[in-house]
Amino acid sequence: MAQSISRGPADGPTIDDLTRTYRAAEATPSDVIDGMLARIADRGDDGAWISVVERSELLLRAKQLEAHPDPTGLPLYGIPFGVKDSIDVAGVPTTLACPDYAYVPDRTAPVVQRLVDAGAIYVGKTNLDQFATGLNGTRTPYSLPRSVFGGGLISGGSSSGSALAVAGGEVPFAVATDTAGSGRVPPALNGIVGLKPSRGLISTVGLVPACRSLDCISLMARTVPDVGRVLDVVAAVDERDPYSRSRFREIPDLTALRIGLPDIGELEFFGDEPMRDAHLAARSRVGLQFSRVVTAPFGPFLAAGELLYQGPWVAERLAEFGDFLADHPDSVLPVIRAIMAGGATYSAVDVFAAQHRLGELQAQVRRLWRDMDVLVLPAVGTTFTVEQVLADPIATNTMLGHYTHFGNLLDLCGAVVPAGLTLDGRPAALMVLGPALSDDRVLAVAGALSGHPVTPPGVADDVTLVVVGHHLSGQPRSRDLVEHGGRVLTSTTTAPRYRLLRTGGSGPVPVLVTAPDGGAAIEVETWRLPAAALPGILARSSPSVCLGRVELADGSTEIGFVADTSALDDEDLSDITAYGGWRAYLAEH
Amino acid sequence: MAQSISRGPADGPTIDDLTRTYRAAEATPSDVIDGMLARIADRGDDGAWISVVERSELLLRAKQLEAHPDPTGLPLYGIPFGVKDSIDVAGVPTTLACPDYAYVPDRTAPVVQRLVDAGAIYVGKTNLDQFATGLNGTRTPYSLPRSVFGGGLISGGSSSGSALAVAGGEVPFAVATDTAGSGRVPPALNGIVGLKPSRGLISTVGLVPACRSLDCISLMARTVPDVGRVLDVVAAVDERDPYSRSRFREIPDLTALRIGLPDIGELEFFGDEPMRDAHLAARSRVGLQFSRVVTAPFGPFLAAGELLYQGPWVAERLAEFGDFLADHPDSVLPVIRAIMAGGATYSAVDVFAAQHRLGELQAQVRRLWRDMDVLVLPAVGTTFTVEQVLADPIATNTMLGHYTHFGNLLDLCGAVVPAGLTLDGRPAALMVLGPALSDDRVLAVAGALSGHPVTPPGVADDVTLVVVGHHLSGQPRSRDLVEHGGRVLTSTTTAPRYRLLRTGGSGPVPVLVTAPDGGAAIEVETWRLPAAALPGILARSSPSVCLGRVELADGSTEIGFVADTSALDDEDLSDITAYGGWRAYLAEH
Repeated sequence: MAQSISRGPADGPTIDDLTRTYRAAEATPSDVIDGMLARIADRGDDGAWISVVERSELLLRAKQLEAHPDPTGLPLYGIPFGVKDSIDVAGVPTTLACPDYAYVPDRTAPVVQRLVDAGAIYVGKTNLDQFATGLNGTRTPYSLPRSVFGGGLISGGSSSGSALAVAGGEVPFAVATDTAGSGRVPPALNGIVGLKPSRGLISTVGLVPACRSLDCISLMARTVPDVGRVLDVVAAVDERDPYSRSRFREIPDLTALRIGLPDIGELEFFGDEPMRDAHLAARSRVGLQFSRVVTAPFGPFLAAGELLYQGPWVAERLAEFGDFLADHPDSVLPVIRAIMAGGATYSAVDVFAAQHRLGELQAQVRRLWRDMDVLVLPAVGTTFTVEQVLADPIATNTMLGHYTHFGNLLDLCGAVVPAGLTLDGRPAALMVLGPALSDDRVLAVAGALSGHPVTPPGVADDVTLVVVGHHLSGQPRSRDLVEHGGRVLTSTTTAPRYRLLRTGGSGPVPVLVTAPDGGAAIEVETWRLPAAALPGILARSSPSVCLGRVELADGSTEIGFVADTSALDDEDLSDITAYGGWRAYLAEH
Repeated sequence: MAQSISRGPADGPTIDDLTRTYRAAEATPSDVIDGMLARIADRGDDGAWISVVERSELLLRAKQLEAHPDPTGLPLYGIPFGVKDSIDVAGVPTTLACPDYAYVPDRTAPVVQRLVDAGAIYVGKTNLDQFATGLNGTRTPYSLPRSVFGGGLISGGSSSGSALAVAGGEVPFAVATDTAGSGRVPPALNGIVGLKPSRGLISTVGLVPACRSLDCISLMARTVPDVGRVLDVVAAVDERDPYSRSRFREIPDLTALRIGLPDIGELEFFGDEPMRDAHLAARSRVGLQFSRVVTAPFGPFLAAGELLYQGPWVAERLAEFGDFLADHPDSVLPVIRAIMAGGATYSAVDVFAAQHRLGELQAQVRRLWRDMDVLVLPAVGTTFTVEQVLADPIATNTMLGHYTHFGNLLDLCGAVVPAGLTLDGRPAALMVLGPALSDDRVLAVAGALSGHPVTPPGVADDVTLVVVGHHLSGQPRSRDLVEHGGRVLTSTTTAPRYRLLRTGGSGPVPVLVTAPDGGAAIEVETWRLPAAALPGILARSSPSVCLGRVELADGSTEIGFVADTSALDDEDLSDITAYGGWRAYLAEH
């Protein structure tokens, strides 16, 4: 079990580092591309990449960005990234690590397109376990990836290349996938951060499915704030994806969150005592960092995980790859062929019976979330060398997924963060899991545990905005706030020192003016939204309003919509203060 | 195709009739039981019932109700009902129309228990197509039910007996089920109302599953307001049911609802011209009654329906009944045996592929709901005699489900209402379908179409309540409103003629007092809730408040919480008007 101690993740810039560098004009995207290509060259053929974009193309893209009139409007300006090679990029072969399966798509997956639209630079396709089937990284006909911790350790899979490209310092982030743990095991084994968001937050259009009902696009980066920043860009409803759903945004209160930890006796380390020790050390820090720690029953989670790997879901892979496998058996790695063949032994009755059992477990787990907000677990119970996995590919793979198999079956979201080393120098990692759509909580806890708190920096970029008319929730322009990341904080009123006026014409607009000589409390909402969105929101608002300061009922003062007196024609104004608010006025007119 | 014209539904009281009779003290539950037993005896062995409770037991139950101290607190006081014999009642055999399968449960299904707790009187178990498999009513070893329209017409199934018990005037309502149309075809063929609520609103605990992932408890009655009233009693989250979910309550605006109708060319009547004529006549009334009619693409609905009956879901029935069928093949009707055997031919891959296809159709249909609120269809395209069905049991059954098969696969809710007769005297029926959780809209449209509008009578029993403090949404006592059927109408303010005071002590209470000499607009919410809930809500509120009249910002006046001046001690009061509302005050203290 003991491994040679090695390096861990290579030095390399985070998204945050690069963004600050660009803002300070200390480097250009061209410089960053040069540095990145040098690092890729330095690493040699580390098994991370299946294809890399030509230097000339990358520099062309960098130059285009440098000519952009408003770089600050691009949240990922100049950030290079890799994409797991089960996700389409137009004009680039999608191989699934099976060269005979490869095809050249003519459309780019929306997840990649959103990144490019946000200013990020697509660098290349990353290696994977063939057909995204495996958690170990050894199942590829391309160069075999190994953990950046050395000692012959596996990289983990199936998103092996995405993890290596980040851990090797080659790109600050990468797009991966996670069906049974493929987006969590490789970051755990390479000392970086992995986020498997709630299923449906990121469109799976343009992803070749592994198990379509369970597949989830995932993200890897060097820090939790970095994966959060990428999620902000790529999370979007896509009506072409049947599993698509809206993100739920919240600002978690870390002091109030209840952190679930299973009884230590329920944890499994497969005899790996150094890993057990490293986990218990990390776990004890959880207890110190959070005031509300509760004991989490772990049985229903494990039972769901067993359903996945001892049940009929393997047949779901055959629904995608069955025809190819039948026509090209020799194009597929023997271990993948053997796994897929198992899918053919299950009947329709087996599927329904397993789905019914899963339904019961899902109901049990839903009840558990009443008593805890997140669950903190080891990401893996032990590690393996490449040789160990090749000698026993099925059993080792099952052990690697002990803590991850149930994640998508139970509709959870989760993040993996580094959590120290074993005494013999292998990486330990914590996994934070929460129910669907609790991504903001999971990120907040993962950020706190990893020493890169996500909430304060995230919030520092946000502002509170007081809205009084068309931007009130449910009113026409509220959509503009929602689409730019806004969420309602409170429904309140102003201090009783305002008047509400209505402009004339067929499209009347309410405007808030101060009334130094008395006035009323006017119904308002406060919203929280990215400060960067404010200029655009103002630009799309009525010319009669501007952003000023509004005093609220609680005595605080926030940025809010007030009248632009220079744009108002007194003769057209009606005083509607008596209604107390725009909604009340509308109800009458 | 032509049938002898016959009676249609027998006379019989509605829930509303009986409730008024009871309130007017014109009859007792004992009288009603006597009348009901006489009607059951008059009908003879019509195939409606598999078992009926002994007269002595029924009268005992009636006497218990008569001794109840507060009959008005029981929303279904003294209303007899039947239960489909796939649903458990403690101590009564559950047969599924398969005597060798029968068992005697020791627990009553929650749906039945809620009815009994609400004062309803359980009368007996109703007939069904064996294992709830079929839409025609002929698949039973008990007496064969026939439509109340005579002419040898089938009753429809699988909830044949539930429909007959209501249409025969024997009970005002019955509990049934609907997996592929079992709760909609029989009411259509017997001239009564059927409601298939959104899946999960009514607990399926205590129901023997047909297809567990699709099963839905349904309701039948003589009018739409009656099924709505029963739904109000039985809809409740049950954490033992993995599919359980909360009802969404709303007050639909019928003038604003967009009614979807498919192109006439997309409708199928299987050559039944009189049925086509009857439907088109009913459909033309839809156009007159509603101002917003839109054309609904019907293809994706039909495609989902074909998936059900040409796909692997039949194997889901085997997941429940496979063992019994293997052990007791001769206990099962040959047609059921043949259908179930078909389930064994599907593989796990077939299920996943079909579920993926269904996922795509679900996404297509979700998009269609953006442009319409409900879809109005024929409930059945044609009718059959018992002889026709027995001669060709599979093809006739498939035709019967043409408009119903897709309902649960697409997670819809729906109601069936009578819509006139064919020229040869057979029943026509309209079906109103909407997306999941649009039950209130479906009921409102079905009520309007059937001439028994559900909204006005329902709302007449509701009141608007103005709340200012602990009952505001999110505040501690709002739960009391929600649990008693309340929902928020608006967030507004009072007219600017009030002061908000705070009582002293450790549990301060805000109270609203009028300020004839000026004052402010105070933040309030208006709620809509059953008038019957008001006394209890008042009783559970602080002694400092009473229900008075509150003038709102829009000039209207509604019932609301105001100060009970007799209970206030002036010395303990602070004036917190300046905060403009209780939430704003709390934010500061």
